[in-house]
Amino acid sequence: MGVLYLIPTTLGDGNLQDILPMGNSLIISSLRYFIVENIRSARRFLKSVDKSISIDDICFYELNEHTDRSGIDVMLQPLYEGHSVGIISEAGCPAIADPGADVVALAQTKNIEVVPLVGPSSIILSLMASGFNGQNFAFVGYLPIDKKACIQRLKQLEGRAVAENQTQIFIEAPYRNNQLLQDIFSTLQPTTKLCIASELTTTEQYIRTQTISQWRHIQVDFNKKNTIFLIYK
Amino acid sequence: MGVLYLIPTTLGDGNLQDILPMGNSLIISSLRYFIVENIRSARRFLKSVDKSISIDDICFYELNEHTDRSGIDVMLQPLYEGHSVGIISEAGCPAIADPGADVVALAQTKNIEVVPLVGPSSIILSLMASGFNGQNFAFVGYLPIDKKACIQRLKQLEGRAVAENQTQIFIEAPYRNNQLLQDIFSTLQPTTKLCIASELTTTEQYIRTQTISQWRHIQVDFNKKNTIFLIYK
Repeated sequence: MGVLYLIPTTLGDGNLQDILPMGNSLIISSLRYFIVENIRSARRFLKSVDKSISIDDICFYELNEHTDRSGIDVMLQPLYEGHSVGIISEAGCPAIADPGADVVALAQTKNIEVVPLVGPSSIILSLMASGFNGQNFAFVGYLPIDKKACIQRLKQLEGRAVAENQTQIFIEAPYRNNQLLQDIFSTLQPTTKLCIASELTTTEQYIRTQTISQWRHIQVDFNKKNTIFLIYK
Repeated sequence: MGVLYLIPTTLGDGNLQDILPMGNSLIISSLRYFIVENIRSARRFLKSVDKSISIDDICFYELNEHTDRSGIDVMLQPLYEGHSVGIISEAGCPAIADPGADVVALAQTKNIEVVPLVGPSSIILSLMASGFNGQNFAFVGYLPIDKKACIQRLKQLEGRAVAENQTQIFIEAPYRNNQLLQDIFSTLQPTTKLCIASELTTTEQYIRTQTISQWRHIQVDFNKKNTIFLIYK
């Protein structure tokens, strides 16, 4: 049986050599089957990894929120025939915050070997640089869109950070970052610490930890920037 | 002011080029000050990254469980004088499950630029390959040593996996892995899923997801192997 490789990509415009191990390229160049979130950007990524790659010889399966879940088994077919398959995410590590996890879960039930490759995770990079507790942390994805529900969730996460000594990590759709920050500033305790990590691994990288009361005195604008938020007591 | 670099290392005997981006080497070779958990293994790592590195010209600060926390400020002194400093962990990403976080926290209060480099995280690699929920997960470090407390904690984590749809990730001292597995098998529900990920990125890499009832029928031995455990409903 083939091997199912999980292939991370860059998080932004950063230099490939600074962000991905060279060994990944060799594996990528050897594959002819890929499961991808978006074929166009996957093609661009493959070309950036290996200019000599013959895109026309590659079979892509598209897997995103529009994909019928019953079609996943077909994507594993090459593996049964001895061909290895790669899953490529849109940004960062596949199956962490994208649909790849469904494929991996099915592969695990079929005893297919799953091999994750090293790459950038905004969760780990921001946690390393935050100074917060890395021995106990939770990534909880997106907060609720509804303002009241969002504020309630923020209070719950702050409570858990204090009660369990657990760093709480979350994200927001980039165009809503500034609104979320206003909710954070008005909801959390002045002594609670917030780390804002934005555009990681790019030339615009920004990572800063301060208390909520310190943040309140600073003009911040993270509109449309890829940003991750961490809170800790 | 200098920059504080967070420098990941390999997780085991894996090939450096397969695990760390080439760009990391250039940064490492440019530094003369390092904060490390163990000077001997840090020296060995630096030599493996760059054979031409002059170890005698390097200033090491040792930071581990024996280090007096009041000495941390001294370790940041080179940064105030314009020299960049690297933090190297024993395995994987610094400040995630080692003392580096204290230094980073202090650096953040002094407005020192903190730059995390990409490297292997057993938490992210195992989560990618588990097929479990990567949009909501918690890493909770070590479980209690006391058997009763450990079993209670396992039940609590299983409860949270179900109630909050949150993957729960934990580790154990390698010589206690088999005992922990017995407690897991006897405590958790038969339908709960367990992923065991061992010796990641090495030639002995093993990653497998099954239900507790399936695991119970298999002879497993992870004694003295670096292993990470994930549970999900």
